[in-house]
Amino acid sequence: MLLDIIKSENDIKKIPEEKLPQLADEIREFLIEKLSVTGGHLASNLGAVELTMALHLSLNLPNDKIIWDVGHQSYTHKILTGRKDAFDTLRKFGGLAGFPKRCESECDVFNTGHSSTSISAGLGFVKARDIKGEESTIVAVIGDGSLTGGLAYEALNNASKLETNFIIVLNDNNMSISENVGGVSKYLNGIRTADGYLDLKENVFTKLMKMPGGEGLVKKIRKTKSTLKSMVIPGMFFEDMGITYLGPVNGHDIDAVREAIRDAKRCKGAVLVHVLTEKGKGYTPAERHPSRFHGTEPFVIETGIPSTQKTKANYTDIFSTVMVKLGERNPDVVAITAAMADGTGLKRFRNAYPERFFDVGIAEEHAVTFAAGLAAGGLKPVVCIYSSFLQRAYDQILHDVCIQKLPVVFAIDRAGIVGSDGETHQGIFDLSFLSSIPNMTIMAPKNKWELSDMMKFAVGFDGPIAVRYPRGTAYEGLEGFRAPVEYGKSEVIYEESEIALVAVGSMVKTGEGVRKQVTDAGHSCTLVNARFVKPIDEELLSGLSKTHDMIVTMEENVSSGGFGEKCREYLDSIGYKGKLITVSIPDMYVEHGNCDVLKASLEIDENGITKRILENL
Amino acid sequence: MLLDIIKSENDIKKIPEEKLPQLADEIREFLIEKLSVTGGHLASNLGAVELTMALHLSLNLPNDKIIWDVGHQSYTHKILTGRKDAFDTLRKFGGLAGFPKRCESECDVFNTGHSSTSISAGLGFVKARDIKGEESTIVAVIGDGSLTGGLAYEALNNASKLETNFIIVLNDNNMSISENVGGVSKYLNGIRTADGYLDLKENVFTKLMKMPGGEGLVKKIRKTKSTLKSMVIPGMFFEDMGITYLGPVNGHDIDAVREAIRDAKRCKGAVLVHVLTEKGKGYTPAERHPSRFHGTEPFVIETGIPSTQKTKANYTDIFSTVMVKLGERNPDVVAITAAMADGTGLKRFRNAYPERFFDVGIAEEHAVTFAAGLAAGGLKPVVCIYSSFLQRAYDQILHDVCIQKLPVVFAIDRAGIVGSDGETHQGIFDLSFLSSIPNMTIMAPKNKWELSDMMKFAVGFDGPIAVRYPRGTAYEGLEGFRAPVEYGKSEVIYEESEIALVAVGSMVKTGEGVRKQVTDAGHSCTLVNARFVKPIDEELLSGLSKTHDMIVTMEENVSSGGFGEKCREYLDSIGYKGKLITVSIPDMYVEHGNCDVLKASLEIDENGITKRILENL
Repeated sequence: MLLDIIKSENDIKKIPEEKLPQLADEIREFLIEKLSVTGGHLASNLGAVELTMALHLSLNLPNDKIIWDVGHQSYTHKILTGRKDAFDTLRKFGGLAGFPKRCESECDVFNTGHSSTSISAGLGFVKARDIKGEESTIVAVIGDGSLTGGLAYEALNNASKLETNFIIVLNDNNMSISENVGGVSKYLNGIRTADGYLDLKENVFTKLMKMPGGEGLVKKIRKTKSTLKSMVIPGMFFEDMGITYLGPVNGHDIDAVREAIRDAKRCKGAVLVHVLTEKGKGYTPAERHPSRFHGTEPFVIETGIPSTQKTKANYTDIFSTVMVKLGERNPDVVAITAAMADGTGLKRFRNAYPERFFDVGIAEEHAVTFAAGLAAGGLKPVVCIYSSFLQRAYDQILHDVCIQKLPVVFAIDRAGIVGSDGETHQGIFDLSFLSSIPNMTIMAPKNKWELSDMMKFAVGFDGPIAVRYPRGTAYEGLEGFRAPVEYGKSEVIYEESEIALVAVGSMVKTGEGVRKQVTDAGHSCTLVNARFVKPIDEELLSGLSKTHDMIVTMEENVSSGGFGEKCREYLDSIGYKGKLITVSIPDMYVEHGNCDVLKASLEIDENGITKRILENL
Repeated sequence: MLLDIIKSENDIKKIPEEKLPQLADEIREFLIEKLSVTGGHLASNLGAVELTMALHLSLNLPNDKIIWDVGHQSYTHKILTGRKDAFDTLRKFGGLAGFPKRCESECDVFNTGHSSTSISAGLGFVKARDIKGEESTIVAVIGDGSLTGGLAYEALNNASKLETNFIIVLNDNNMSISENVGGVSKYLNGIRTADGYLDLKENVFTKLMKMPGGEGLVKKIRKTKSTLKSMVIPGMFFEDMGITYLGPVNGHDIDAVREAIRDAKRCKGAVLVHVLTEKGKGYTPAERHPSRFHGTEPFVIETGIPSTQKTKANYTDIFSTVMVKLGERNPDVVAITAAMADGTGLKRFRNAYPERFFDVGIAEEHAVTFAAGLAAGGLKPVVCIYSSFLQRAYDQILHDVCIQKLPVVFAIDRAGIVGSDGETHQGIFDLSFLSSIPNMTIMAPKNKWELSDMMKFAVGFDGPIAVRYPRGTAYEGLEGFRAPVEYGKSEVIYEESEIALVAVGSMVKTGEGVRKQVTDAGHSCTLVNARFVKPIDEELLSGLSKTHDMIVTMEENVSSGGFGEKCREYLDSIGYKGKLITVSIPDMYVEHGNCDVLKASLEIDENGITKRILENL
């Protein structure tokens, strides 16, 4: 096994040139085998094997620096920097992270997870290098999907001013997570297919050269940097911004990529190396279904079929179904996703109402302001963005939607602890950042039926409103509790006395377990489904305060600015003399791992909460 | 006066064609006269007079819709829609807003204030129009400065897919607030000066036409849409994205702009009309100093000099001075602004250390992630962004800076109530959104000396840290209180008993006044300067809780997630039995007006707070 030779960075250079293709094969086999057991980001990593090898061969790590955009394509980089043996623990609690982590290796120079940050960060490294008078090559590796994010464009706009070397590798597989969208994508596709460009180059130049005086003209055209170059050289879009363009290069040809990097190193300024790759390369099921193998569960290698079949609907499925119904009932309902038609479940809405479905690409800020425009124009937009990505649109929600009280519905999937993607993806801040915004209403459902009911309520509501729901299987308990959703009103599940649990969303299920343990211990316990996080149900709290010695709020969100703090303020204002316990996520980032394991470690699971209650009685 | 004819939208169409230049003159005179008294955004409005007239002549308001990016250039639009007589109340409490407001006129279809939102919102209106089967022309008017914002690019990327009409007017004055930066700006400048383009068109085409067979080639080139067009047609950058480009057009030639809009209306798709204007046009002082007249105080018309000379330093001046000192002492200190070198006071740092100063353009997201890269590369970046604009970089702070605990300093100017710019610009959310982020430290100075001390502390601190300070004159009181800044420690100003005021930043001065009134009323009162908002000083609070019947927290920030809530949680946890009053901004947007008037209306001024304390004793 050539892979055995690689114990740390630069060991790849010990492998004879002619055996590099064999190494690529071994890496692919390794990834497929390991990920078939652990799950993880397969397709993008299979697409980046040769590209990563070429970078490692061309650079001297850790002095030279690679910044991986998003970072889910960094598995080969992890293997080549001596982390091969940790892949059995991939994305497990305490194990190898699925994204670059500075704490794992000094070859991981910048943590990533969200999209489109690499050029900005890389530019920072470049300026730091120059100011400190150091020598190193800085490479940002960004996918074509990430290039639709405005942050990447802001960075390109600034990189154009550089007068020292900065290499941007555009890893172009013509996909973000699903199919890529928009003008830039179309443009890249134009280059990719070489349609027009090479043709014209041949055609026009050949003809000119045959004409008397034509040779001089060709020279003139070649010399003219910024205007005529696009006739013969693709990448005019980047050249227009002042960024040297090299490519396109076949990203599965190690020598070709190395040669391009060699050329790029010679540029005094920002240079973009356009590398064409195939997502899922080398594993037929992933080549055929790159979107399904973007992030995959464990699977059977021979067939590509998931090892364990999903038997129950998750919240995304429920949302998917209700959106189709809402779209049918109300022609004003439109749906917006930021490159997540699959992940959010909006694919079915898209198929049913293609004219009312918008995939804006990885562009959460635009998604929200666009929705504000749609609402101001008289429609009822539903913006579906994962909780941690919605952080990107905080100002757009505050400034474009809520000041004008526009009726935009935010469907916030992956809210709360999300598990194996780790700290960059936990959806544990949305209740805080949304609560700070005036005119915002926030809801969270306890089970699958309530998600449907809340979506119906939200679409009928005349103002900004958010429904946040977790990753994973939709709770099917408490099916009898389906009182109509009423603005600002909670739902009492069990009414007793002594201890009152007031739980938000997913915490209602946890609350049932807590209640059982607490009543088993001989106490009387009320369970309330908060339903609304903003506004809080003051009437209910006031009632509970009169009949309970202890009130316990429960939420999967950080404490600062969350549900518990709002309840505390109100209960203080009415002079509640009992004990208030606010269960929430402490002021820290939550790493990757199984959701149950993480919740237990944070003591926000049944046992942890019960223990805290009993200790405080 | 032609202006008297204009009582509502479309009245401009009653004015004979030949008198339109006279109307433009009258509007300019009117704006100069009114703004010399009220202050306001002068330069950008003087530059947009003819452009706005041409739009109103070409459109049928309110059925057709104009979305003004940022919106500070909408004064002529306000005049032409019947709001002329309200200009004496411009930006005053209860008066005419300085930005478009849906509540003012149905011709203001979308509220703005922050940059780069218009194309996203406009695209929303376009889709709503098409889905509802309505007929109208939608125009987004965006400046070249706003085009550096990633949101605008995300929107352009999506607009490129349109198959129905959408007009984007690029109001290009080669400035954002100060000089514009980056690749796109350079590119626009290339078009503006027609350097290369027209020349080559003449040259190459003329020569080709003279050659045998050349005619066919010219035809072929002209037909080739996306590759060769840039040789003869400027705007290739936009055409590459799939957006039709028209221009450049002289923006002070009403007929030329009208003709361009007429052409643009015929396009089936997104079309960009590139209009060249001069910021400050028609008023010599503003033409010469467009940056100073971007937002101006009242001034003497004859000279352009401010009517009242500033006699005392404001916080920005203090920051400006200390940054120069910090830059001198520590070669690792670098400074970053998002198009606000003047406004933030970083101009002096730029002049002293040009290599260590970065103006990234209107691109707050990039500013922060770039700073993260600089810090990861070993430097000590200070990012200076106004509070309300920093909302745009919430995710970048959370995801790129704080997860990695990178030592980035956030200097947050215009924090708290800012006054006449109104609800889009109030800096009243930063304590909340920053507090929700793990690993973040937040400080606020009580007076001018403390701002310096805190900046020194921040630059020496090994982690993410924010210093937030208000707009306006730096407080010069309490000069004797200058104990060294110590992590997490508050400063006791007056130590007594009964009532304890714990004030954040600007509220310390207010606290002095409150204390005077409260002690005059016969009570004993402690005054504490919180200094740190995160972490709170638990030791101090614990001490206060033992000796005071009432603790009053005071902050210029919304209550949700703010300083008061954190104190309340801690005081509850230690079983404080006294009364806690949290003075903060209620859950609402705060409109425009004089700061003192606004604070009084919110009851967060001396009188309001004193009253509340006395009522609660």
